[in-house]
Amino acid sequence: MTLRVDMPRLQADIEALAAIGRGGKQGGIYRMAFSDGDMAGRTWLSERLIQAGLGIHQDGAANLGARLGGDGACVMTGSHIDTVPDAGYLDGALGVICGMEALRILKERNVSLSRPVELVAFTDEEGRFGGMFGSQAMSGKLSPGAIHDAVDASGQSISEAMAVRGLNALDALRAQRDPGAIHAFVELHIEQGPVLDHQARPIGLVEAITGLFRWEVSLTGAANHAGTTPMDMRQDAFQGLAEFAAEIDRVLEEHGTSRSRATIGRVQLLPGAANVVPGEARFTLEVRDTDAAVLAELGDAFGRTLFAICRRRDLNFTHEISSRIEPVACSSLVMDAIRAASADFEIQALPMPSGAAHDTQMIASIAPAGMIFVPSRAGRSHSPEEWTSWAHIETGANVLLNTLLRLAR
Amino acid sequence: MTLRVDMPRLQADIEALAAIGRGGKQGGIYRMAFSDGDMAGRTWLSERLIQAGLGIHQDGAANLGARLGGDGACVMTGSHIDTVPDAGYLDGALGVICGMEALRILKERNVSLSRPVELVAFTDEEGRFGGMFGSQAMSGKLSPGAIHDAVDASGQSISEAMAVRGLNALDALRAQRDPGAIHAFVELHIEQGPVLDHQARPIGLVEAITGLFRWEVSLTGAANHAGTTPMDMRQDAFQGLAEFAAEIDRVLEEHGTSRSRATIGRVQLLPGAANVVPGEARFTLEVRDTDAAVLAELGDAFGRTLFAICRRRDLNFTHEISSRIEPVACSSLVMDAIRAASADFEIQALPMPSGAAHDTQMIASIAPAGMIFVPSRAGRSHSPEEWTSWAHIETGANVLLNTLLRLAR
Repeated sequence: MTLRVDMPRLQADIEALAAIGRGGKQGGIYRMAFSDGDMAGRTWLSERLIQAGLGIHQDGAANLGARLGGDGACVMTGSHIDTVPDAGYLDGALGVICGMEALRILKERNVSLSRPVELVAFTDEEGRFGGMFGSQAMSGKLSPGAIHDAVDASGQSISEAMAVRGLNALDALRAQRDPGAIHAFVELHIEQGPVLDHQARPIGLVEAITGLFRWEVSLTGAANHAGTTPMDMRQDAFQGLAEFAAEIDRVLEEHGTSRSRATIGRVQLLPGAANVVPGEARFTLEVRDTDAAVLAELGDAFGRTLFAICRRRDLNFTHEISSRIEPVACSSLVMDAIRAASADFEIQALPMPSGAAHDTQMIASIAPAGMIFVPSRAGRSHSPEEWTSWAHIETGANVLLNTLLRLAR
Repeated sequence: MTLRVDMPRLQADIEALAAIGRGGKQGGIYRMAFSDGDMAGRTWLSERLIQAGLGIHQDGAANLGARLGGDGACVMTGSHIDTVPDAGYLDGALGVICGMEALRILKERNVSLSRPVELVAFTDEEGRFGGMFGSQAMSGKLSPGAIHDAVDASGQSISEAMAVRGLNALDALRAQRDPGAIHAFVELHIEQGPVLDHQARPIGLVEAITGLFRWEVSLTGAANHAGTTPMDMRQDAFQGLAEFAAEIDRVLEEHGTSRSRATIGRVQLLPGAANVVPGEARFTLEVRDTDAAVLAELGDAFGRTLFAICRRRDLNFTHEISSRIEPVACSSLVMDAIRAASADFEIQALPMPSGAAHDTQMIASIAPAGMIFVPSRAGRSHSPEEWTSWAHIETGANVLLNTLLRLAR
């Protein structure tokens, strides 16, 4: 049995949710967690679920969803409807709406299932208060202290923001699911990268979600007059950074994999004047891979490279680890189902990593989990330029529906 | 005949002027042009000149000085007593006080001279209102429009600042000297670089003052997600900049001279987030040499290098010339006198360029001009760390005195 989504209904729902929170500076969407836009989106989603006869359920972390079927370990799907500021219309919304459509089809067709199927829209994936609040709650990663410390950029705490909406943030501790309560978890998401678009492939089969480490590095030399200091008497901190940047590809080739990424995204030179040799260069180095051992080796290799450059150039360096996320492998149970559901539509899903973080990363610690990717035009995401063709959305929704069917049957 | 300065008197004067304007954030001196500190310095200098029986003279540009001897083409020496914010105690002050001491010695010893000797303390060398106001005025480089447009960082114009002190800025147009009025000009200055200190040489013989060009460069690629964008699908503007920075030494070696310098002193990445591949890198490139033709070739070579990197990496670049100063060769008349005066003290002056700009650069366009350098410890300048030993100061003052003697005799 192969099921198909109701595409006109799915498209109308995507367009309806896309209209909620519209009006960013660049014409994008604003539905940061617990903002008016987010609350309006939650109301809209609740109404659509009730209209579909699915009912609604909200847990202590304000994760909003619905459940088809009774007790027992469920097959869960979902994503999030909160957004970054000035967001595009897909991102998490796509996975929630396609999940809702899957539940609707399963219900309407009266498909006989041996497991319940559950939809969830997770709270604050995008990080107004740090990110993945809902999926962390569900997977038991929150503590009262962490909840207390979660504040947004303006200093408002999640406790205050939830209280305004009549919610108690500490209830999130009760959102944790029991071991075994989730038989499998599947998230449909846009790739947010250029690979599927570039290779003209409709479906990505996520094998792992990359982990990362982020360093705040400072190289120090000596600030000197750019006119009076001969080239061979300089301790130019920026030249040290430039040499390091030029080594990144070599380090990835020697110590990384095809899934490794390393990025210098922020640089500050001190004193930062055109006529002064930089005495200090501060920069971020962010390194990602799907394998924890590779990440560790890359950390060593980048450290050795920095050390060698500093010794040769008479510079000093310090680095601080500002972030560290462990990579997560996807479950073969879920990957097999996605592969088979793709084959139902004569599609060979492209195995690939997820370079971005997702709620799946959290749920994977309590349940077999996996992800389906659809193409993002030119890899654009977190911006109003985000776009995926309706044909690709339909294919992704059908693969999700049949993946759930295979897992729940 | 070899003359010697009165070192206790010279040292006392340096210490006295160093006390005026003290109190910067790092314990330095603040005598920006026409500030209270600068005015107090001018009052102190006037009193010392009058006490020495030298009288004082102030031209329309508020250049303050004294003249020993009558009419005719003079031998001029001088520098400036205004400072950068939080300055050291030497910089321009050293040349003014050593010049005053030279005039005092020549007067006290009743040395018979065939030319008058003149001291000048130039107005606003350091650039509160753009820099070298006094020496530009004396060499006829100012226009009413340029005077009108000269404003400081707070928006106050030089006209307003001079009016507060009872001066009319437009009078600066009358400060221009006639052609031939200056037989020769000599400026004593600390090196502001590390070469003399490093090579343990007491006297530098400046052969040329470097010119420079300064570019504001922008490289643009595409801002992309640092996790989802494979390394080979990036248009990373910072990687383009890093590759360019690594080419600087090669370009200088192939197209420059031992006097060439190139510096990237300011860098800004956009959007500038750790998890975003930089879409744009803005930076300054400042290039110096003592030869205009070399500077032009370096400009071509750096442009070609940028162009090749951008073509290879699919980046775009624009550059704007934000500054351009022509190099100035020193006069052999003056250099010969400095060399001979150094030899009087059994010193072989080290021929070298001035990498920094000086009033001499302006005066060189109307008179044979040259400079004497004394060591700067570790090349430190424009900071309270500026320091030169009293022995080196004495040597420099003696070389200046005897250079003036040789030129005026």
